[in-house]
Amino acid sequence: MQGHEGVCEEFPFLSHLSKSHPRIAGKIKRDATMTTGASWKSEDAGPNRILRWVMMLPDEKLREFGINMQLLKPQVIAKLRDKASNYESCISVAIKLTWLAYQIPGAPVPPDHIRQYLEAHYGKMNTLTTCGVCLLPLDFTMFGEAQRGKAIIETCHFDPRLHNPDNVGFAHRECNIAQGNKPLPEFYDWIAGILKRVNNRLVK
Amino acid sequence: MQGHEGVCEEFPFLSHLSKSHPRIAGKIKRDATMTTGASWKSEDAGPNRILRWVMMLPDEKLREFGINMQLLKPQVIAKLRDKASNYESCISVAIKLTWLAYQIPGAPVPPDHIRQYLEAHYGKMNTLTTCGVCLLPLDFTMFGEAQRGKAIIETCHFDPRLHNPDNVGFAHRECNIAQGNKPLPEFYDWIAGILKRVNNRLVK
Repeated sequence: MQGHEGVCEEFPFLSHLSKSHPRIAGKIKRDATMTTGASWKSEDAGPNRILRWVMMLPDEKLREFGINMQLLKPQVIAKLRDKASNYESCISVAIKLTWLAYQIPGAPVPPDHIRQYLEAHYGKMNTLTTCGVCLLPLDFTMFGEAQRGKAIIETCHFDPRLHNPDNVGFAHRECNIAQGNKPLPEFYDWIAGILKRVNNRLVK
Repeated sequence: MQGHEGVCEEFPFLSHLSKSHPRIAGKIKRDATMTTGASWKSEDAGPNRILRWVMMLPDEKLREFGINMQLLKPQVIAKLRDKASNYESCISVAIKLTWLAYQIPGAPVPPDHIRQYLEAHYGKMNTLTTCGVCLLPLDFTMFGEAQRGKAIIETCHFDPRLHNPDNVGFAHRECNIAQGNKPLPEFYDWIAGILKRVNNRLVK
């Protein structure tokens, strides 16, 4: 995607958003297709953002691309391998995220052919996209907001180890961070347990 | 504290733990007296761990120490200034954390003179120290455990912007991360709101 301007043929459904909101379209492409990266560069931090389907390849194959997995710390390897996903899933995730993005209050209205394309994949676009974790309404302007240098909306995964269209959404950054590496049902059980203990303590 | 071996006179109450568990004693000293740092080094990431009371000084004074605050990003400045605390508070925090550490199941038994010193400050050491956020029991062995390269116990702050003995404890790393920069009551309200919405959705 580097050195690549304008509409990308792999993402025809993003042609409109790429013009009206290029940074958001770029974010959808990036989150759909790339692993998250280390926030700094060093030998053992591993590659900073890499195509998710490249991470499906075995170590020997990766070496041909100049990536020596054996130099990385086990926790970095685990993190990278967790984000692996095949090409088809990544494109489907991009379609799903676009479908969700247009349903965030304040989003631009998609041209008919794009709406039809998206609805053919994921159904009528007549709901409001809420935060995938806390379920509060999102607002399209949040894509442009940052707190301490970080965007306040992120792509989230209901199960952090699955990158497919049924498993992705948008979430507040703080919600995504709180969820951590727990699947969503486990996260809800976990916070329910915390509240139970807090309330018990108050009663005593 | 660099290049400094053995018992530190500022921390007589850590003399025993410094011998039995030097890494834990070091952690208590560090967390009590130093700001957290950036996990990487760069010009605008700011100093990586700095004495909390140094962060009380005005910009002009800091320049004498070779720290030019004006080079840092606003979010880095805010983060560093949030962690500022005077010397007396930092030492009191270290005493409190030591008092709490000895009450974690599995902790070594302190010698009498240390117990007396700690109890003179914070009362009888006859409770079990739980995670300050989720209230589950902690275990002393957790200080030695790591997940993906990070220790699983951290020092926590009930109000993230106050570094004093009434406001500190130990917490699971994941709990501390989930709490983020919210004061604890606000965090509990926040997760209660999430659960309410999740349960409402299930009912519908």
